[in-house]
Amino acid sequence: MSPDTLTIVGVGLIGGSLGLAAKANGAARRVVGVGRDAASLEKARALGAIDEPCLDLAAAARRSDLVVFCTPVDRIAAQVLEAAPHCRPGTVLTDAGSTKAGVVTAVDGRLPEGVAFVGSHPVAGSEKRGPEHARADLFRNRVCVVTPTRHSAPAAVERVAAFWQSVGMRVRRMDPFAHDDALALTSHLPHLAASAVAGVVPVELLDLAATGFRDTTRVAAGDPGLWSAIFLHNRGAVLAAAERLTAWLGEFRSLMESGDAAGLTDLLARAKKVRDALGS
Amino acid sequence: MSPDTLTIVGVGLIGGSLGLAAKANGAARRVVGVGRDAASLEKARALGAIDEPCLDLAAAARRSDLVVFCTPVDRIAAQVLEAAPHCRPGTVLTDAGSTKAGVVTAVDGRLPEGVAFVGSHPVAGSEKRGPEHARADLFRNRVCVVTPTRHSAPAAVERVAAFWQSVGMRVRRMDPFAHDDALALTSHLPHLAASAVAGVVPVELLDLAATGFRDTTRVAAGDPGLWSAIFLHNRGAVLAAAERLTAWLGEFRSLMESGDAAGLTDLLARAKKVRDALGS
Repeated sequence: MSPDTLTIVGVGLIGGSLGLAAKANGAARRVVGVGRDAASLEKARALGAIDEPCLDLAAAARRSDLVVFCTPVDRIAAQVLEAAPHCRPGTVLTDAGSTKAGVVTAVDGRLPEGVAFVGSHPVAGSEKRGPEHARADLFRNRVCVVTPTRHSAPAAVERVAAFWQSVGMRVRRMDPFAHDDALALTSHLPHLAASAVAGVVPVELLDLAATGFRDTTRVAAGDPGLWSAIFLHNRGAVLAAAERLTAWLGEFRSLMESGDAAGLTDLLARAKKVRDALGS
Repeated sequence: MSPDTLTIVGVGLIGGSLGLAAKANGAARRVVGVGRDAASLEKARALGAIDEPCLDLAAAARRSDLVVFCTPVDRIAAQVLEAAPHCRPGTVLTDAGSTKAGVVTAVDGRLPEGVAFVGSHPVAGSEKRGPEHARADLFRNRVCVVTPTRHSAPAAVERVAAFWQSVGMRVRRMDPFAHDDALALTSHLPHLAASAVAGVVPVELLDLAATGFRDTTRVAAGDPGLWSAIFLHNRGAVLAAAERLTAWLGEFRSLMESGDAAGLTDLLARAKKVRDALGS
């Protein structure tokens, strides 16, 4: 069943794309966009990402059937707790944050009776920011991880999963901590490695950089403040992922020191096998 | 002055592209291709990359004005030493290998009077292999590093530099060891980091990988045997580059452990600055 009124909190690239996708797929009768900046909200409305701008989270919460928080990950829990007391019983809240344990733990057991929060992470994105880069097809055929806990009402989990499916996503359910461990490897670690490589190369050598450097470091151009927040929000898992990288580099070093060409080839071949499984 | 007869030893992607570029730019009157496989040479001839196939390196060396070795980096020095005694005085030899100190050191002082070798590294390439992917514009506007030593005859260095310029390259002269240190950072380290990230991520998590993982690990799909040879051929510089990466990761870890958001943002911002200087 589609929500009658969908509220999107934070109408940037993700929130804007979600509004466009919800409207394109008939996933809600009405889309309300909540933000702190009237001009941004008006831009999102002009682009067709939302039907109605609203500067007041509590007022929007009162009339919503489903609320999706698309704000930076370090603000989501506080906003959920702020909105929930104003919601009618039966309202379901979810989010689009890229880490889950922190948000879920901060919210679990602290919502009014009848109001449910279920964490989500639509694995889709872009280097770009802002509603002007929003795309209705951003979520299509991508995976959305939904992270219920033992406190989650099954009906609320179903509604959240059905919502992401209605904008074209494949839903995968995971424990929030397992999600964060996995994303530390598949998303945070690549960013870390890209920044590390860019961070140790002197600018005056850049004319000796070819395609390999260009591809490998591309995401290092991302927003440093945003990524520092993501890393800290998933500190334990990111540190464990970095430790795995360091261990791999240690294995590489020891093979290099012993001049073990066959061992090196095998180490690289195992990595190639993973990359080949992804496709170009 | 363009060489009358240019011989290209090894007619794969690089050698084939060099033949196409030399002919497109009138950089030689005649291009001879040397290889061990008659069918490959015939393919290169059919594609217009060479005028004449030749299975005998000594025979080709006898009639060449300029010989460019485009074979894998661990075979170049031996082939140079094999060809040189057959060359006429005044013949200049160079190569396209991606590491330089090993080749230059193995060859320096061991050539007949009047025959010169000057190391080169055209910084251009592709994930693809084989003459069928050769492109006449592969070198255009890219940098070629030429690595003379104190033994190099200035006229030979000039001829090699002029040759690379004649196929559209910008020539940068560097000491061979400085070249290898630089390339360890700009080329070998990105490959190493890409393989490390791909190497620590379990295949079953790949549906949680987005663009960042895809870009960062792209070059890990390269040929493991080829890359293991490149790493070992530049062992000291690659180990030093890997050590810099490990040190950067150590700095990252200590900022994470102390929860220093400003320090992390600054570390990422310095890396972003390098990446931004490269352009997309």
